[in-house]
Amino acid sequence: MSETIKLVLLRHGQSEWNKLNLFTGWTDVDLSADGIREAETAGRILREEGYDFDVCYTSYLKRAIHTLNLTLESMDREWLPVIKSWKLNERHYGALQGLNKSETAAKYGEDQVKIWRRSYDVCPPALDPSDKRCPALQEPYRNEDKGILPLTESLEITVKRAWPYFEEEIMPRMKAGERVLIAAHGNSLRALVMKFENLSPEEIVGVNIPTGVPLVYEFGSDMKFIRKYYLGDQNAVAAKMDAVAKQGTVR
Amino acid sequence: MSETIKLVLLRHGQSEWNKLNLFTGWTDVDLSADGIREAETAGRILREEGYDFDVCYTSYLKRAIHTLNLTLESMDREWLPVIKSWKLNERHYGALQGLNKSETAAKYGEDQVKIWRRSYDVCPPALDPSDKRCPALQEPYRNEDKGILPLTESLEITVKRAWPYFEEEIMPRMKAGERVLIAAHGNSLRALVMKFENLSPEEIVGVNIPTGVPLVYEFGSDMKFIRKYYLGDQNAVAAKMDAVAKQGTVR
Repeated sequence: MSETIKLVLLRHGQSEWNKLNLFTGWTDVDLSADGIREAETAGRILREEGYDFDVCYTSYLKRAIHTLNLTLESMDREWLPVIKSWKLNERHYGALQGLNKSETAAKYGEDQVKIWRRSYDVCPPALDPSDKRCPALQEPYRNEDKGILPLTESLEITVKRAWPYFEEEIMPRMKAGERVLIAAHGNSLRALVMKFENLSPEEIVGVNIPTGVPLVYEFGSDMKFIRKYYLGDQNAVAAKMDAVAKQGTVR
Repeated sequence: MSETIKLVLLRHGQSEWNKLNLFTGWTDVDLSADGIREAETAGRILREEGYDFDVCYTSYLKRAIHTLNLTLESMDREWLPVIKSWKLNERHYGALQGLNKSETAAKYGEDQVKIWRRSYDVCPPALDPSDKRCPALQEPYRNEDKGILPLTESLEITVKRAWPYFEEEIMPRMKAGERVLIAAHGNSLRALVMKFENLSPEEIVGVNIPTGVPLVYEFGSDMKFIRKYYLGDQNAVAAKMDAVAKQGTVR
């Protein structure tokens, strides 16, 4: 008898820099007031739909951590174990971090920005190793092997650090019957989704995960993908996916 | 050469039920607005005094979890690992949970309330096992052996579950050089303090730990107690200790 394994993914809500249309990457910016509401709503939907968890995962970035905290608060599940890993961080955006997306599009052209944002294997310009934005120089990464911390990342590189973490740390717990919630970022979640659905590089670059909407994946006991669906108001979900796809144009 | 081991204890700030002067115990009430400010201030003080941590511990109760979250937010250290355990929960107050402290004092007499609050080995009246306030019937404790979950606790019983947890889970990490912060409750912290300082039952019942003030313990490499001190404004600390000692009188 095979049992269905469920996993819930949650992309953090709007951040202060999303609002300002800046490239964020590993910059540790907080949620906006809208982002806070999105997280609270996600928790309410999960509670109303009867979801519960045994363990939660998130990144080292406060916009994802706060999203998880607020979601668990709405669910009255703050006592659940939470495990944080930088392997679930957003894609590192290299030297673009802190730049305005529209200004960058105006300067380099929309095509170049689209390549940086939506190609599979092209990295944005790398940070200089002496740049204080380098993870190797930042406190949250002080215990990590400096050699594996990025100066920039393509989606491909993001997959190469997020997927092994999922396979080694999260998947065994799912197979053992634990119900898992992952609160993370657009690109670290796309990295997982690509592997779940066995998507090609061409396919994954067209996938948009809306913010603050619980995304349920169902797998067979062998972790073979069965289906996925979003929880909550489906029209709101469609509008959000459209909004994400439009980012990075000149205006 | 022996190195000093430091540990920081933090008692959660005022809760909604502290404000209403109700016996709380394991009731999962939230911080009041004052309690939120206390936690933010604790984090600011820790940051200003140059404290940093490798791992944080808290209970299953949201007033302690929120205190820790807010403290870490003030310290810009939200990426630190946080481990939650019910072994660090407040003392279980049995059937007194939800009763007003002054009304209980008026009904049973201040002396009886003082015995329940401040004796070492006397338990408040136990919950009936069918009472929905019983931990064995509550979600956060669903994975625990029902036999070890309390219906009421004396301070002595609190010591017997908090101290082994500290010895087995926290102390080895301290000895290995990890800097630890524990955000917990008046009585679970008193349980630890009693053991740290080798206090008698008579001595520990006279100890008051103020809310929201970082309390630093220093130990030798053998975990032998050297000294303790509070961080921040020492007059404010003294006023808070006095306020805790006055609770449980008729008015």
